[in-house]
Amino acid sequence: MAPQLDGYFKQVDTLSDYFIERLRKAVAIPSISADEERRPDVVRMGEFLAAELSALGAEVQQRPLGKQPGKEHLELPPVVIARYGNDKKKRTILVYGHYDVQPAGKEDGWATEPFELTIDDKGRMFGRGSTDDKGPVLGWLNAIEAHQKAGLDFPVNLLMCFEGMEEYGSEGLDDFINAEAKNFFADADAVCISDNYWLGTEKPCLTYGLRGCSYYSVEISGPGQDLHSGVFGGTAQEPMTDLVRILASLVDTDGKIQIPGLAELVAPLTDEEKSLYGNIAFTMENLYESLGSTTSIHPDKERTLMARWRYPSLSVHGVEGAFSQPGAKTVIPAKVIGKFSIRTVPNMEPEDVDRLVFKYIDEQFQKLGSKNTCKCTLQHAGKWWVASPKHWNFTAASKAVERVWGVKPDLTREGGSIPVTLTFEQATGKNVLLLPMGSSTDAAHSINEKLDKKNYIEGIKLLGAYLHYVAEEPMVN
Amino acid sequence: MAPQLDGYFKQVDTLSDYFIERLRKAVAIPSISADEERRPDVVRMGEFLAAELSALGAEVQQRPLGKQPGKEHLELPPVVIARYGNDKKKRTILVYGHYDVQPAGKEDGWATEPFELTIDDKGRMFGRGSTDDKGPVLGWLNAIEAHQKAGLDFPVNLLMCFEGMEEYGSEGLDDFINAEAKNFFADADAVCISDNYWLGTEKPCLTYGLRGCSYYSVEISGPGQDLHSGVFGGTAQEPMTDLVRILASLVDTDGKIQIPGLAELVAPLTDEEKSLYGNIAFTMENLYESLGSTTSIHPDKERTLMARWRYPSLSVHGVEGAFSQPGAKTVIPAKVIGKFSIRTVPNMEPEDVDRLVFKYIDEQFQKLGSKNTCKCTLQHAGKWWVASPKHWNFTAASKAVERVWGVKPDLTREGGSIPVTLTFEQATGKNVLLLPMGSSTDAAHSINEKLDKKNYIEGIKLLGAYLHYVAEEPMVN
Repeated sequence: MAPQLDGYFKQVDTLSDYFIERLRKAVAIPSISADEERRPDVVRMGEFLAAELSALGAEVQQRPLGKQPGKEHLELPPVVIARYGNDKKKRTILVYGHYDVQPAGKEDGWATEPFELTIDDKGRMFGRGSTDDKGPVLGWLNAIEAHQKAGLDFPVNLLMCFEGMEEYGSEGLDDFINAEAKNFFADADAVCISDNYWLGTEKPCLTYGLRGCSYYSVEISGPGQDLHSGVFGGTAQEPMTDLVRILASLVDTDGKIQIPGLAELVAPLTDEEKSLYGNIAFTMENLYESLGSTTSIHPDKERTLMARWRYPSLSVHGVEGAFSQPGAKTVIPAKVIGKFSIRTVPNMEPEDVDRLVFKYIDEQFQKLGSKNTCKCTLQHAGKWWVASPKHWNFTAASKAVERVWGVKPDLTREGGSIPVTLTFEQATGKNVLLLPMGSSTDAAHSINEKLDKKNYIEGIKLLGAYLHYVAEEPMVN
Repeated sequence: MAPQLDGYFKQVDTLSDYFIERLRKAVAIPSISADEERRPDVVRMGEFLAAELSALGAEVQQRPLGKQPGKEHLELPPVVIARYGNDKKKRTILVYGHYDVQPAGKEDGWATEPFELTIDDKGRMFGRGSTDDKGPVLGWLNAIEAHQKAGLDFPVNLLMCFEGMEEYGSEGLDDFINAEAKNFFADADAVCISDNYWLGTEKPCLTYGLRGCSYYSVEISGPGQDLHSGVFGGTAQEPMTDLVRILASLVDTDGKIQIPGLAELVAPLTDEEKSLYGNIAFTMENLYESLGSTTSIHPDKERTLMARWRYPSLSVHGVEGAFSQPGAKTVIPAKVIGKFSIRTVPNMEPEDVDRLVFKYIDEQFQKLGSKNTCKCTLQHAGKWWVASPKHWNFTAASKAVERVWGVKPDLTREGGSIPVTLTFEQATGKNVLLLPMGSSTDAAHSINEKLDKKNYIEGIKLLGAYLHYVAEEPMVN
């Protein structure tokens, strides 16, 4: 199948130094979306992408998103959208990536200059954005170019959507996607996003699920102002006393959420699903390494993966308004706000979660018999996402992985959220696939972010191969 | 008794404008001990005091305390010590005060310039340090001067100890007092400190007790670094989950400390002591006003005063290491440090309190069955202080209050600590009296600090009268 792939692969190998140079140019542009002063660099990075795409013959638009909410002196960087091919007989695949990066500075502890791609003798290509997400974004461009240079027909029509604000909450993107779903993106048959990572370092994966997140504040207030504990300790009901009791009632050390009714919302585990976890390339050692400790809840890999992917969890993040500095301060804070969030999974509807949380917090507070005031609010909710891994979009990707890496990919979910995934699914109504290029040790968002040369080059092959298998998949689903 | 007092009082009234001018000069020197840049002003304030005392004929020394710990580029301001009178037939009273002040700026919300004494039509003299503690300190100088101008014999030998670092932890003072207890302060018969406030606004008080404070940190750690709650929620035992459970186990909404054995350390309430609280000039309205709410623990004044003065209390102050900013962050903090303190009372020995606290926290943590690490440490301990209010030092002060204000003073304790009180008691072995000049509405440490003109002028009379009655008290105790 897909016999043209041998020629394609060979061409990618031939062009590998050139593709690395393209990545070097991209990494050299410090497109930090969170840093106002770097906004011109973010824009410059978008222009770089647009120019490269134009040179490859794609139809490119840089679409403005208006002013940045809350920072109206700043223009949001444009979304770069592009179309490569417009053959009605071919399938059309919409791919997403982002060209902005997390902040980085040598002073944070980087071993190399973060905006100079530096390759060590193990082939690790260090640089901010190398793996998140410039490598994968350029992967699509490289796949086009390798086809051209090898004289191969491109197997699909490719729609591209590359944004410049992903690391700052994808400001403005949802509205844009919703608006373009019936316009620029209208003939997409499926969506592919390459912006996550393998579960480990050896085995590729396809990701078909993400947990959602409902984030809550519980505010307890009483006194008119902060009090001195010497003067008022023992005479005033202290909001912090109430708050720690409320927070303590939410979850236990082993992660068991204490809110009645929440567990009942979770989709039951089927035998079929249960059987999948044993084969995933993941060990408890992997977990301990990433934790930096052995303070895990579960002793085995299956339950650990299920706890991460398919069961909800509740984390207490902190307290606003209380004393949080080093040292000692004898304050009775007048108003304290506890922050906690619940990672949600199928079939937990966010509204049902809210209802159960508010009811429980209210009951717990009533039990305290406090004269203080307790107010629980939802800060934000993002819904979980689960796709069907039996869709041709996944089947094609699976064949591509096997062809490039010689191994069937793990089918994984992730514990965190990538909100744009659900946005694309809901806006287009099409299957969405997460097809990672980098591995678990790439340190996205950390110092010394890297992408292995092998993951980049084989990743370019993978993206191209995926498109060929997409073209071959039968017209079902 | 003390017939000379009429002449003294008259002289104080005659000199009242002059005494207010002296306070104006002192307030004009911004002697903020916490502000490095104001250190020269603190020194200048000490020099002002020393010069005034010399002009009054006192023997004055400005004693250096060396470098400021942790800020070795800064010299601590000197302690101004002075002796007025050296007649072996007279009693010797050691008085303490401080000439430094809290920070203040118009931008904090002051209605007037904080370092310009501004008197309104109700006789309220606004200015930083007016009541805390420049007014009381100058009270002693004014008492000397009024005696001189009235041609009256000064009834006692007066030893004075005025420091310039009280608002910054009295750096270096304890060692100084301990060293001088058998030297400069050797012949003190009793100690008088005027650095606190009436319980209300109408009735003077003498203060004979202070609670102590034992301040604890409980640190819980597990993961090697902060974690993302999406990736690790449900798989890692979270230190914050454990910490809120530990903190929740310490005290309930009604202030009942849950640590076994602690209540048993508290001196039992006698009928005699119990009977004292009813007569104290204090109402629940006073409490609600100062709380800015009605979120009190006790419904009545007696239990409220006992809870403030003679029973321990436990306050949870906050959490270090967790998310404490506004907004939302989905972090699982790797190490969190809860801060709480216990206000201690007779007969709680700090070592016993530590032992019970450490044992309890350890038991509570064991109950959680957590793999995280829990470490509870004492940050600092200051012991409670209770003097005998039947000592001649108090009897004399009580007579002075009755003579000046026409009412018997309330005998009060305070919930907070004034550590120097215990230092003087332990170093000299003599009775210590707290004799406040200002009232509960003076707003020491806040914006718009003030001292009522009446409290200042009558307070000068009070300090002089106190010394006369001290001279007359029988030679017992």
